[in-house]
Amino acid sequence: MAAPASSAAALIPRSDRVAHFEQDVWSIFTPLALECQAVNLGQGFMNFPPPDFVVEAAREALLRNDCNQYSHPKGRPRLRNALAKSYGPLFNRTLDPEHEIVVTAGANEGIYSIFAGYLDQGSEVILMEPFFDQYISNITMNGGVPVYCPIRPTGDTSKNMDASQWKIDIKELESKITPRSKIIVLNTPHNPIGKVFSREELEQIGDLAVKHNLLIISDEVYDRLFFDHKNHERIATLKNYWDRTITVGSGGKTFGTTGWRVGWLIGPKLLVEPALAAHTRLVFCVNSPLQEAIAVGFEQADENGFFGGQIEAYESKREKLLSVFRELGLPYTVPEGSYFVLVNTDKIRVPSDYPFPDLLHKRPKDFRTCYWLTKEIGVCAIPPTEFYSKPNQPLAENYARFAFCKTDETLDAAIERLLKLKPFIKA
Amino acid sequence: MAAPASSAAALIPRSDRVAHFEQDVWSIFTPLALECQAVNLGQGFMNFPPPDFVVEAAREALLRNDCNQYSHPKGRPRLRNALAKSYGPLFNRTLDPEHEIVVTAGANEGIYSIFAGYLDQGSEVILMEPFFDQYISNITMNGGVPVYCPIRPTGDTSKNMDASQWKIDIKELESKITPRSKIIVLNTPHNPIGKVFSREELEQIGDLAVKHNLLIISDEVYDRLFFDHKNHERIATLKNYWDRTITVGSGGKTFGTTGWRVGWLIGPKLLVEPALAAHTRLVFCVNSPLQEAIAVGFEQADENGFFGGQIEAYESKREKLLSVFRELGLPYTVPEGSYFVLVNTDKIRVPSDYPFPDLLHKRPKDFRTCYWLTKEIGVCAIPPTEFYSKPNQPLAENYARFAFCKTDETLDAAIERLLKLKPFIKA
Repeated sequence: MAAPASSAAALIPRSDRVAHFEQDVWSIFTPLALECQAVNLGQGFMNFPPPDFVVEAAREALLRNDCNQYSHPKGRPRLRNALAKSYGPLFNRTLDPEHEIVVTAGANEGIYSIFAGYLDQGSEVILMEPFFDQYISNITMNGGVPVYCPIRPTGDTSKNMDASQWKIDIKELESKITPRSKIIVLNTPHNPIGKVFSREELEQIGDLAVKHNLLIISDEVYDRLFFDHKNHERIATLKNYWDRTITVGSGGKTFGTTGWRVGWLIGPKLLVEPALAAHTRLVFCVNSPLQEAIAVGFEQADENGFFGGQIEAYESKREKLLSVFRELGLPYTVPEGSYFVLVNTDKIRVPSDYPFPDLLHKRPKDFRTCYWLTKEIGVCAIPPTEFYSKPNQPLAENYARFAFCKTDETLDAAIERLLKLKPFIKA
Repeated sequence: MAAPASSAAALIPRSDRVAHFEQDVWSIFTPLALECQAVNLGQGFMNFPPPDFVVEAAREALLRNDCNQYSHPKGRPRLRNALAKSYGPLFNRTLDPEHEIVVTAGANEGIYSIFAGYLDQGSEVILMEPFFDQYISNITMNGGVPVYCPIRPTGDTSKNMDASQWKIDIKELESKITPRSKIIVLNTPHNPIGKVFSREELEQIGDLAVKHNLLIISDEVYDRLFFDHKNHERIATLKNYWDRTITVGSGGKTFGTTGWRVGWLIGPKLLVEPALAAHTRLVFCVNSPLQEAIAVGFEQADENGFFGGQIEAYESKREKLLSVFRELGLPYTVPEGSYFVLVNTDKIRVPSDYPFPDLLHKRPKDFRTCYWLTKEIGVCAIPPTEFYSKPNQPLAENYARFAFCKTDETLDAAIERLLKLKPFIKA
């Protein structure tokens, strides 16, 4: 066996930057789901294969030596060209692949690089809650301070809601801005609400950014996953916001390849340059063969009817999952995009004497609800308070997030188990 | 064409962290080599394919969906197990794949993560010069301060030298240590000198680290590339240094796949934890299919006689390249490891009226020598002052770094062109 951890190692203190990190939700629930053999609707990864034409492109790239060696830090020219061609019409402008697109090691590293390129000690970043949990560490590791404004459900949360009923109070949002504010982060389609921000909402946010000279990070990693012919508006295309917006995209979300770690940033040259500078030093470049395959994915998506077919498949999966919550009488928010559903768990009566591990007693109620769901019902969901600042966690403790980027068989198995919830639901 | 960069974009200032970056050597010489159709012995990437059994493993992994989705932030269990099995005997200990190994998005991101996990504002990092250029930004981006100590050639630099003749003055090294020193970085086999540090040297460095309670980063990315049956000693195996050493490895260097971006950290649990914490937030995880292929690489390396065969191939390439410098009468350092040769260019008479671009007049002499070599002789080499702090750049301005990780055809073409140097060499 390994030697025991020694005392010398313990004497070199870690940086303040990482010293305060708490155990994250994934390292609690992913092993738990495995241990209980629960159906895992927790982490948002596909348990079905990526499209054949994209996999085949990766396999072919591996036979070309230039695809096995370093790429340019900006990304492979073929991928930047394919992105420019695919996104140009969506941005209503000709995108310059040489200066307006940077390929990153997943969207996550792209976002980290923007923060690294813009934040100084004490710079503030405005986030809307719930947020993607990695934003927080990515901000604080670069000396920044996250400032929070919740997206609140309007209307009766005891009934099914449209994702559009979750709203930002624009006055509350503006009240969070100070002279230290530098960046505002927008996420649309939104994880975990499934909200696709309307043009009106985007213009309210964009106008604030202009008024207070903020950089806008528009995290649009689910931009190819919107439903019911909803139009996914891009803030970079509205008014004069292009000049201050970096849009973030994801090959993993777009082509069902979350393990390929290929993402991208799109924005004006001067705006993406600091992120490129940071990215080049962080990772130098992104893996080459899978960049090449994502390029082929964009080149051949249309002839394969890929994006439309993928949306239809997700719409059917969404309906499958929502149907069981209707049958159980658990209210949910209908997602307009992404592959998550927020379910109101308030009516679930978890036995009051249930023996939770100590670890969970310090956490909000949704951690215990999701633990019990995973352990006793056999379906793993994620507690969304993980995506809130501490003071606002009570807003989310009656919800659970379920992912539907799963095979129909997996969803059917989850449904069969979820029906066992019936005796635990208040009338 | 793209819209011109707008004024709004310019008004959002970049962070201090990236504001001071200079144009790096690669973005000058890589395009120059292309433009001149020079034989590129600059950047250290292979222009021959990786071994078939490793490529085939990547192609097979792409057909398994688990290899297309997120991996654990620590790395795929199969790769961590393969690393533990391959490195265990080299470290003279059983390595615990669960706690003592972290897979990173290339060695670069691994090193960045260590700095992020340990450095606070003003923490000092002791570097030996010449250094891998990315160390500097990776340190300063995390608030650290690089402190330099040169490795100096001992003996007559106008003659061929052994890499072992480049030495650290251990008193000079200790004089660089202050109460703010936190980390010392070692690189062996060394880029660009090709030096493999001896046990005695490692013990001098290790003893200093113990005396001053420094973390040792041992950058051993060329650990499978050492020549002439030289023993590559690992500092983590000596005395009590394991307790304070994180060793860095590289799939790209090991299997000729610089574009796969798979590296790793090996060290005691308590020591690698802060780096893992940073790494998880930076990139979440490393691309999955190529991790799987590197795992297979280690599993099958022995039965394919891979590491020994690779060393023999590189020894032959080294000899091929050295032969032309012997013929030209240009003194060189014989590398004991890595795939670089430092050549003393002092005897090359670059025409004094040669029209260099303005950009190069601000740079040390080796930038102009390498520019002229690339442009007029048609062989691209890298000026090594890029790997020195400004005050110590004069130590390297009479050298050029040539990479020999190239096909024999490429090396033959370079030799043919280098022979054109003859009339420019002082007797």
